[in-house]
Amino acid sequence: MTDATIYLDHAAATPLDRRVFLAMQPYFSERFYNPSSPYAPALAVRQDYDAAKHVLAKSIGAKPDELVMTAGATESINLAFNSVEGHVITANIEHHAVLKAASKRPHTIIKADKKGIVSGEAVQNAITPKTQLVSIALANNEIGTVQPLRDIALAIKQEREKRFANGDTTPIYLHSDASQGAGLLDLHVARLGADLLTLNAGKVYGPKQVGLLFAASHVRLSPQIVGGGQERGLRSGTENVAGVIGFARAMELADASRKQEVQRLQGLRDQLEKQLQAAFPEAVISGHLKRRLPGNLHISFPGVDAERLVFALEMRGVLVATGSACAANKGTRSHVLTAIGLSDEIADGSLRLTLGHLSDQENTARAAAIITEEVQREQERMAK
Amino acid sequence: MTDATIYLDHAAATPLDRRVFLAMQPYFSERFYNPSSPYAPALAVRQDYDAAKHVLAKSIGAKPDELVMTAGATESINLAFNSVEGHVITANIEHHAVLKAASKRPHTIIKADKKGIVSGEAVQNAITPKTQLVSIALANNEIGTVQPLRDIALAIKQEREKRFANGDTTPIYLHSDASQGAGLLDLHVARLGADLLTLNAGKVYGPKQVGLLFAASHVRLSPQIVGGGQERGLRSGTENVAGVIGFARAMELADASRKQEVQRLQGLRDQLEKQLQAAFPEAVISGHLKRRLPGNLHISFPGVDAERLVFALEMRGVLVATGSACAANKGTRSHVLTAIGLSDEIADGSLRLTLGHLSDQENTARAAAIITEEVQREQERMAK
Repeated sequence: MTDATIYLDHAAATPLDRRVFLAMQPYFSERFYNPSSPYAPALAVRQDYDAAKHVLAKSIGAKPDELVMTAGATESINLAFNSVEGHVITANIEHHAVLKAASKRPHTIIKADKKGIVSGEAVQNAITPKTQLVSIALANNEIGTVQPLRDIALAIKQEREKRFANGDTTPIYLHSDASQGAGLLDLHVARLGADLLTLNAGKVYGPKQVGLLFAASHVRLSPQIVGGGQERGLRSGTENVAGVIGFARAMELADASRKQEVQRLQGLRDQLEKQLQAAFPEAVISGHLKRRLPGNLHISFPGVDAERLVFALEMRGVLVATGSACAANKGTRSHVLTAIGLSDEIADGSLRLTLGHLSDQENTARAAAIITEEVQREQERMAK
Repeated sequence: MTDATIYLDHAAATPLDRRVFLAMQPYFSERFYNPSSPYAPALAVRQDYDAAKHVLAKSIGAKPDELVMTAGATESINLAFNSVEGHVITANIEHHAVLKAASKRPHTIIKADKKGIVSGEAVQNAITPKTQLVSIALANNEIGTVQPLRDIALAIKQEREKRFANGDTTPIYLHSDASQGAGLLDLHVARLGADLLTLNAGKVYGPKQVGLLFAASHVRLSPQIVGGGQERGLRSGTENVAGVIGFARAMELADASRKQEVQRLQGLRDQLEKQLQAAFPEAVISGHLKRRLPGNLHISFPGVDAERLVFALEMRGVLVATGSACAANKGTRSHVLTAIGLSDEIADGSLRLTLGHLSDQENTARAAAIITEEVQREQERMAK
C-alpha cells in the first residue's frame, strides 16, 4: 500500500497492528515450543498462552475456561451451531457462515426490518418449543446495523423460564457473531445476554485465521475437530501460540482506546456522509442511522454501476467494497441489501465504506472529494 | 532458548525458519488485504496465495485444486474422514486425531507389528466390502517407523478393481498423515498411492496452525466448516495468507535440502544411538531400525523413570520428550508403545529424541554425554 492509497474497507480486513506483531514475534522462532511438551520452556509458553486467553476472557467478561480458540469466526460459528441438534433461528441479513450452518438443521429465518434491525419481538414470535439456538450478529457486516441484542436475550430468557416452569429441559441459547463489533462496541457477555459469542482477530488488527468462541459454562459444546484434546477436548490441534497472543494484544489495545476511537471514527464517518450527501442528495444511506457501527457508511448512488465505481476509485487510490468480500467475489447481489428491501437499481449502486485505523481527517476528506468526482463522472457517462 | 540449550524434540514443534518468517512478514501489516476483495491490491494478494498453493501442490505432485488449506494436521485428518460415512480402517499406533475420527464411524483397528509396521497384508485382511477409507500415517510420530504405504495402496487398488469388476461403486480411499515426513521423505502422492494426504506446516519449520489436505480430484470431500465458500466451498473462512505463504516457503526450503538433510540427520542420529548403546547395552531401541525417520531415536532405559529423566535433562539444558506432546501432557502411558508390545517397565523408561535443524555434531555429542550421565545417576539412585 502506498502512502497515497486510501483504505476504506476495514470491515473486510485490517492490517496487523505493529504492537500486535511485536507481541507475536518471539513465539515464531524462539519460544516456538509445543505448549503440551513437558519441559520448562514449553510450560512457560503454555503459561503465556493461558495468560493471553485470560486477557481475551476478561475483555468480554468471561472466564478463560469458557473460551475455545479457533481458526476464525467461521469456525467459531460452525462450532456454536454444533452445540445443538434442534430448531435454530437466525435472520435474513446474517453472514453466509450463519445461514449455511443454520440450513443444516431445522430452522426459521426471520426478516430484519428496513433498517436491518432484528427485534426481540420478531425472535419471540419465531421461537417454538423445539428452538435450541438463536443466532444474531451483534452488528451487520455490510450495513453496520447494531442489533438490540438485550431485547433478543430477554425473549430467550422468557422462553427459558417458561420451559423451566413446565419442567421442560430443552436448552435454548443465544449466539452472537460479534466480529464486526470488536474494539467498537461493548462485548461484555453478561450485559449482552449471550450464551455463545464469536470473535475474530483478523477484524480487530490482529492476525487472520485466529478466532474464539465463548460458550458460557452451562452450554454443552460438541467438538467438530477431534484429536489430541486441546482446548479441553473441544477443539484439538497444536495451539496457535503466536496467533492467540496476538489476538489478546489486539483486544487489549482495542479496549484501551475504544471510547476515543469510536468518537474519532464517528466524526470521520459523519464528515464523509455529509460531504457525499451534499453532492448527491438522491444517495441512499442504508442501515440504522443511529444504531450503526461508528466507522460504517453504506451508501447507494441510484443508477450507478458500483462495480465500475470500485474500479474507477481504485485507479484513484481509493479502496472500497460493494458488499462483503465473500459475496463481492462471486459477482452476486448482496443478500443483505435484498433483505432490507433495496431495489436492484439501488443495491447495484452501493458502496460499503468502512473506516478504521488507517483513516484520518485528511484522507477521509480526500476520499470524499475523489468519490464525488468519480460518481459524477459515472453519472455523466450514463447520461450521454 | 539459550545457546547452551539442546533441543531434541523436533517432532513436537519446530522453530519457524528465518527465511519463512521473512516470506510471511509483508502479509501481516502491508499486504493485509482480504483475498476476496475486488480491488487490485487484494487481487495481488489472491495471486500470491494461489502461487503458494501451487508451490505446495508441486511439492507433493498434486494440482493446486486438489489442496484444501486448513488450520493444521488435526483439522485435515478430520476433514479426510469426513469424506466417507462407511467403514474405516486404521492402526493401533496412529495419532489420537486419527483414532478419534475413526471411532465416530464403523471401524477396524489393525495391529502394527513389533517394529511398528502396518503391512499391506494386514490392511488387505481388514478390508470389508463396506470399507471406504484406510488411514495410515506415513511415519509414526513416536517411534518414527516409516510405513510401506505403497503395499497398502496396492491392497486398496486391488479391492477397488474387484469392486469395479462387480459393478460396485462404493469408493475406497487411502489417507495418510504425512506430517512427520515432510522434508524428510518422498511425499509425491502418485508414488505413495495416496488419495488423501495430510501435511502440517508446524512440523517443517513453518507456522503453527497451518496445514493442508490433499484430496485427489476423484475424492468427494464434504465440508466440516461452511460459510463464505473459500477453498472451493470445502473449508470456509478468510484465508490465512501469511500462514499459507510461509507453509509454501517452508516446503520449498525442505525440498531443496532434503537429501543432504536426511543424510546429516541420519549421521547425527546414528552417532547418538551408538554412544547411548555403548553406555547402556541393555537399552531398547524401538521402531524399525531401517525404515525409520532419519532424525528419530526412540530409546528405553529399563527401570528408569523417564519423567524424572526429562526433568533432570532439562536442568542440564537438554530438552527431550517421553512420547508425543499430547499424550505426555496427560501423564498417560503412550498407546504406541503398548501397541508394539513394550512392557510397562520398558515403556516408562522411554525417551523420544528427535533431531532437526537445531541439531549439529557438537550439540548432539554433548547431548549424548549428558544423557549418559543422567541415566547413570538415575540408575545409581535406584540401586541404593
